[in-house]
Amino acid sequence: MAATVNPDLKKERENSSFDPNKITSFLYGGPEIVKKKRELESLALNDPDYQHEDLNFMSQEQQYETFLKKTLLMVTKVRELKIDVADRHFYRSAVIGTNPDPLGLHVGMFLPTLYGQASQEQKDKWLKMAENFAIIGTYAQTEMGHGTFLRGLETTATYDPKTQEFILNTPNLTASKWWPGGLGKTSNYCVLMAQLYIHGKSYGPHPFMVQIRSLQDHKPLPGVTVGDIGPKFGYGSVDNGFLAFNNVRIPRENMLMKYSKVEPDGTYVKPPSTKLAYGTMVQVRANIVVNSGRVLAKAVTIATRYSCVRRQSEMKPGHPEPQVLDYVTQQYKLFPYLAAAYAFWLTGQTMMSVYTTSSNQISKGDISALPELHALSAGLKALSSWVANVGMEECRMACGGHGYSHASGLPRLYANMTPGATYEGENTVMMLQTARYLMKSYNQSLQGEKLAGSVAYLSGVQPVPAAGRTRNMLDLGVLCDAYRHRAARLVHEAAVQLRNERQAGKDQPDAWNAASVDLVKAAMAHSQYFVVKNFAERLTDSTLDSSISDVLTRLCQLHALHGLVTNSGDFLEDGYLTGTDVRQARRHINALMAKLRPDAVALVDAFDFPDGILNSVLGRYDGNVYEHLLEWAKASPLNKTDVHQSYHKYLKPFLEDNRAKL
Amino acid sequence: MAATVNPDLKKERENSSFDPNKITSFLYGGPEIVKKKRELESLALNDPDYQHEDLNFMSQEQQYETFLKKTLLMVTKVRELKIDVADRHFYRSAVIGTNPDPLGLHVGMFLPTLYGQASQEQKDKWLKMAENFAIIGTYAQTEMGHGTFLRGLETTATYDPKTQEFILNTPNLTASKWWPGGLGKTSNYCVLMAQLYIHGKSYGPHPFMVQIRSLQDHKPLPGVTVGDIGPKFGYGSVDNGFLAFNNVRIPRENMLMKYSKVEPDGTYVKPPSTKLAYGTMVQVRANIVVNSGRVLAKAVTIATRYSCVRRQSEMKPGHPEPQVLDYVTQQYKLFPYLAAAYAFWLTGQTMMSVYTTSSNQISKGDISALPELHALSAGLKALSSWVANVGMEECRMACGGHGYSHASGLPRLYANMTPGATYEGENTVMMLQTARYLMKSYNQSLQGEKLAGSVAYLSGVQPVPAAGRTRNMLDLGVLCDAYRHRAARLVHEAAVQLRNERQAGKDQPDAWNAASVDLVKAAMAHSQYFVVKNFAERLTDSTLDSSISDVLTRLCQLHALHGLVTNSGDFLEDGYLTGTDVRQARRHINALMAKLRPDAVALVDAFDFPDGILNSVLGRYDGNVYEHLLEWAKASPLNKTDVHQSYHKYLKPFLEDNRAKL
Repeated sequence: MAATVNPDLKKERENSSFDPNKITSFLYGGPEIVKKKRELESLALNDPDYQHEDLNFMSQEQQYETFLKKTLLMVTKVRELKIDVADRHFYRSAVIGTNPDPLGLHVGMFLPTLYGQASQEQKDKWLKMAENFAIIGTYAQTEMGHGTFLRGLETTATYDPKTQEFILNTPNLTASKWWPGGLGKTSNYCVLMAQLYIHGKSYGPHPFMVQIRSLQDHKPLPGVTVGDIGPKFGYGSVDNGFLAFNNVRIPRENMLMKYSKVEPDGTYVKPPSTKLAYGTMVQVRANIVVNSGRVLAKAVTIATRYSCVRRQSEMKPGHPEPQVLDYVTQQYKLFPYLAAAYAFWLTGQTMMSVYTTSSNQISKGDISALPELHALSAGLKALSSWVANVGMEECRMACGGHGYSHASGLPRLYANMTPGATYEGENTVMMLQTARYLMKSYNQSLQGEKLAGSVAYLSGVQPVPAAGRTRNMLDLGVLCDAYRHRAARLVHEAAVQLRNERQAGKDQPDAWNAASVDLVKAAMAHSQYFVVKNFAERLTDSTLDSSISDVLTRLCQLHALHGLVTNSGDFLEDGYLTGTDVRQARRHINALMAKLRPDAVALVDAFDFPDGILNSVLGRYDGNVYEHLLEWAKASPLNKTDVHQSYHKYLKPFLEDNRAKL
Repeated sequence: MAATVNPDLKKERENSSFDPNKITSFLYGGPEIVKKKRELESLALNDPDYQHEDLNFMSQEQQYETFLKKTLLMVTKVRELKIDVADRHFYRSAVIGTNPDPLGLHVGMFLPTLYGQASQEQKDKWLKMAENFAIIGTYAQTEMGHGTFLRGLETTATYDPKTQEFILNTPNLTASKWWPGGLGKTSNYCVLMAQLYIHGKSYGPHPFMVQIRSLQDHKPLPGVTVGDIGPKFGYGSVDNGFLAFNNVRIPRENMLMKYSKVEPDGTYVKPPSTKLAYGTMVQVRANIVVNSGRVLAKAVTIATRYSCVRRQSEMKPGHPEPQVLDYVTQQYKLFPYLAAAYAFWLTGQTMMSVYTTSSNQISKGDISALPELHALSAGLKALSSWVANVGMEECRMACGGHGYSHASGLPRLYANMTPGATYEGENTVMMLQTARYLMKSYNQSLQGEKLAGSVAYLSGVQPVPAAGRTRNMLDLGVLCDAYRHRAARLVHEAAVQLRNERQAGKDQPDAWNAASVDLVKAAMAHSQYFVVKNFAERLTDSTLDSSISDVLTRLCQLHALHGLVTNSGDFLEDGYLTGTDVRQARRHINALMAKLRPDAVALVDAFDFPDGILNSVLGRYDGNVYEHLLEWAKASPLNKTDVHQSYHKYLKPFLEDNRAKL
C-alpha cells in the first residue's frame, strides 16, 4: 500500500494560491477552536473502542446494535473525559459521522423539551435522571397520519379529575406515533404530544412525560404498544419507532406545566403566549441550515479530491488522460456546489447567531423577534436542504460509477441527510410560511409601515426595471441588487396574483392555494437573496487576509452568478437584466471556474474533515483511492469465501441440469 | 384488514373523465398485448415459488442469494411455460421488479455479444451452451480506472504465435475489471474486452471469450482473481464483480472473430467498419429511455395515489383536512412528472422503432443512419435518465416522511434506477457526443447542405427573434416552434462560442472544452425539442378516442409549458418570448393542473402496474395504506422480539450503572 500522497493531489496542494489553514480558521472561528476541534477529533478517531466493521457491510439490525453500543460508550467517555459542553459536538461528530444514533432525540429533543417546558418541580424530579441517562427518552409528536400539521394530531390525553390522572389513548390507527428516533427499541420514556381533553373540551396539543417501558426488564408497560417502523432509505443506525396507547393512565403532574397548566379540579390555565414553544423548532431548523452547509462541504470534498486523482478519456489525441477536474463540464458540476457549501456554511453561522440573539430577547419576555426569526429559519431551512440534496447527488454522479459504490461514502451521506427536506417542517410548507410573512410585510409596507430585518428591502422598492444600464456583472453590489430586485418583484407579483384570485371570487384560503406556486417562488427568491447578501457581507470582514479574501470573493461571485444564470428568466422577465447581461454572466462563470481550478483542492481541504469523518475511499486526503477500493471490496461479506454458499444450494444443480439437457 | 377500496380513491376513479383501459391500450400497443401482459404478470405474481420476505429486510448477501435462486427458477419456468421471446419481458418484470438480477448481463450483454461478434464457428461452439445456461457469462469491459473511454482500457491480450494463444494480463491495479454484473460470484465465463497486442504492436480493444471459474467446483481458474466489489447504493440483488488476470492463456480461437481476426501467424485482419460494434450500445441506451419513462411512471403512480389517500393540514379553518393532491403546490410537484412519464414513455417507443429500422439497414451493410442514431440515443438517454432521477426523488419527497420508509418502495426504486445517469455512457459525455453531431450538422448546413432527420430544423433556421407577436401559449404548434427556436439558437450560440475560443488562440480540443457547458446546453435543448415534438406528433394519431386525446393533449401542453417556464431565460434571452408570454404560460399551467386534477388517478392507473410490481405500501391500488404500513413494520427484523438482544448486552448495564451513580 502506498504510504505517500498521490502525486496529482500533492501537486494540487503545492499550486494553490493560499494556505488552507487560514480559511479553516475563518470557517470555525479562530485557530484555538480549530486546535481544540482537531484534538477532540483525533481523540475519538484513534480510540480503538470505537472501531468496527464498515456499516455498509451490516444488516440494519447490526447497524442499530453497533450504534447503540457506540453511543452508550460515547456518553460514558464524554463524562470521563470531562469534555466541555460547547466542544462536545466535535468529539461526537468524529464518533458518529453523519449517522443518526439511538440517543439522538434524547439529547436533541427530550432534554431540551424538559428544559423548556417543564416546571421547576418537574425539572427537580426528572432532569437529573435524564441528564445522567438513568432513563432514556424520545420526543413523540409525529403520527402515522400527521406530520407537519401539529393541530391535526389525534392522540388524546383526557383528564380524569376523580383520580387526577390523564388517560392516554390512540383512538385509531393513524393516531399511532410514527417515526420518533430511539423509540422503537431504546427509549423507556418519552415526551408525548397529545390533544388535551378536559370535561369533554379540547385544548389542543400539549406535552406529557410518559414512561413506556419497564425499568426492570425493558418490556412495554401495560396498554403500551411500541416497536420499530422498519427499514428506511438511510437511518439504519437508529430505531425509529411507533407507539400506541390503550387507556394508559399517568399522573396529572406528568403534563409539562411550565406554561400551560391543568389544576387538580380540571381548571385549565392558558400559557402567556402560544408562540413560546417555537424556540426549539427554530433552533432545530437553524441546525439544518448549518448541517446543509457541512454535508455539501463533505460531498464536494470527496468529489473534488477524486476528480483530481481520476484521469479519464483523451482530451487531445496522443496526450495522457487528463484529470477529470480539468474538464470544464466537471468544474461546472462541482464548483457551484463548492461555492454553495461556503455560502450555506456562512448562512448557518448567521442563522445561529440571529437565533441566539433572539432567544435571549425571548427569554426576557420580548417575543417581537419571533415572526422574523420563524420566517427566516423556515425559508433558509428549506432552501439549504433542497440545495444540499441536489448537490450531494450531483457530487455522487460526478464521481462516475464509483460514486455509486458505498466505498465512496456518498450514497450513505445522501440517504442519511436527505430527510432534512421533509422533516422538521416539510420544505414546501416551510416556504409557504415564509411567504405568509412576506405577504404580511409587503402589505404593511403598502400601508406606509417601515419594515426592518430581512424584509426591510420590501419597503418602498418599486418593481421598476432599469434596462439599458451597463452593468459589471462581477460586482457583488450589482449582483446583490439584482437578487434584491428579483425578490421584491416576485413578492409583488405573488401579492398581485393573490389579489387577482380574491377579486375573481375565491375566498382567502382558496386564493392562497391558487397562488401558492408563485408564493413559494417568492419565498425562494427572498431566501436566495439573503444567502447571497450574507456571503457578500462576510467578505467585508477587515481581518480577512487578502490571499483568502480574493479566493472567497471568487466563490461568492460564482455562487451569485450561477444562481442568476440558472434562474435567468426571473431576471429577464421584466427587463431588469438584458440578454447581454446574462451572456456576460455566463462568460464570467467560465473565467471564475478557470481561476478557481488551481485552488479547488485547497478550498475543500480547508473544510478540514479528517478521513475518519469523511468515510470515503474516493475522498481520502492522500488520494490513494484505487488500492483502498480493492482492499475495501475484499473485506466485504460476499468475499468471505471464493465460492459462495449459494453455488452449492442453487447454481450447481441448475448448471448440471442444464448441461445434462444439452 | 379492510378488503374494500379506500373511499377517497374510489371517488377519484368514479370522477375521472375517461376509461383508463383506453390509455393502457394506447401505451402498450393494443388490447391484445395488454391482455397478454396481464396474464403473464398474474402468472408470475401468483406463483408461490417466487414468494419471499421483503428484500428491504435482508442483508445484501441475503438479497443476492434470494435473487440468484429466483432468477434460476425463472429461467427454468420460462422454458417450461414456453413463453414467447417477445412476451418474456412482461413475465420477467413481474418476477424481478426493478431489481437487477445475477443473470442480467448473461442475457443482456453476453449473449448479444456472442450473436453480434462471434463467427459462425464460434457460435456453433458456444451458443448452445450459453443459450441453455450450461455456462453463465458476463460482459467484462469497465475497469477500475476506465469507464466511458473504451480506448483507455488497460487489460492486455498479447498474442503468442508459438502456442497460438493469447496471454491475458492485468498490468496494474486500475486495469482490474470492475463493476460487471454477475461477475463477482455467479459467472463462470465472460466476454472480456482487452487491448490486443501482436508482435509488440497495439490494435486497440477487442472481445475475447474467457472461462474464469471451474465448471467442476466453481473455483477461480489459475491466474484468475475474481470477487465481489462490495455493497452499493442499490443493486443489492446482484454481484457486481472485479476480475484480474496473471498470465492466463486462452486459445487463439477465443477472440470473437466475426469482424476483426488474428490469423495463426499473428496477421491482423481489420474489421470492415469500426462502427459496427455500436449497435448493441445504441440498443442499451434506447432501453434506458424506455425504462426512464417506466420508472417515472411507477414513482408518480405511488405518489399520486398516496396523495389522494393522505389528508393533511387545514386549508380552511374548521373544515376537514384536505387530500394533499388538492394543494396546488403538490400538483406542481407531481403533474409535471406525470406528464414527463408519458412524454418519455412515448419517446422510448419512438427511439426503439428508430433503432429497429436503422439496425435493419445496418444489418444490410448500410451504416449511413448510424451517426444520427448514435447522437439521438445518446442525448435522449442522458435527458431521460436525468429527468427520471430528479422526478423519482421529487415523488419520494412529495410523500412526506413515509416516502423515506422502504415501505414506500421509492428509495429502492431510486437506488436501483439512478445508475442510468452514469452507466452505459456517462450523461455529460453523452450530451457532448450529441453536441458533436449538432456542431457537425450545423456546419454542414452553413455550407449549404440539406439536413435530414432530427437535425433537419437546423437547416436555414435563422436565430431571429420574433418579438411583439401575440401567441397562444397553449397551442402545441406554438410551443414546438418555441422549443425549436431555442434549440436552433443554442446550437448557433455554442458554435459561435466554439469559433470565438478558436479565434482567441485555443486549439480545437481546448476550445471544445472551453465551450462545453454551452455545448451541453445546446444538446439538452435539442433533446427536449425532440421529446416535445414527438409527444405532439403522437397526438395526431387518428385512432385516438377523443376522451383520451383531450387528456393526453393537456399532459403534452403541461409538459411543454413546464419545461418552458423552468427554462424561461432561454426563451427570453433573445426576445423570442416576452415576459407576457411567460406569465401567460404560468397561468396556463395552473389552469391545466386544475383540469388534470380529477383525472390524475385514472392517468396513473392507466400505466397498469399491478401492486406486486409497484411493491409499495403507499401506492397500493386499493389505497389501504395505513393498515399495511403497520403490518409491514411489524414483520421487520427488529420487531422479532419485544425487547431486543442489544438491551441485555449494552443498554441494561449502562442504565443500571447510571442509576447507581445518581
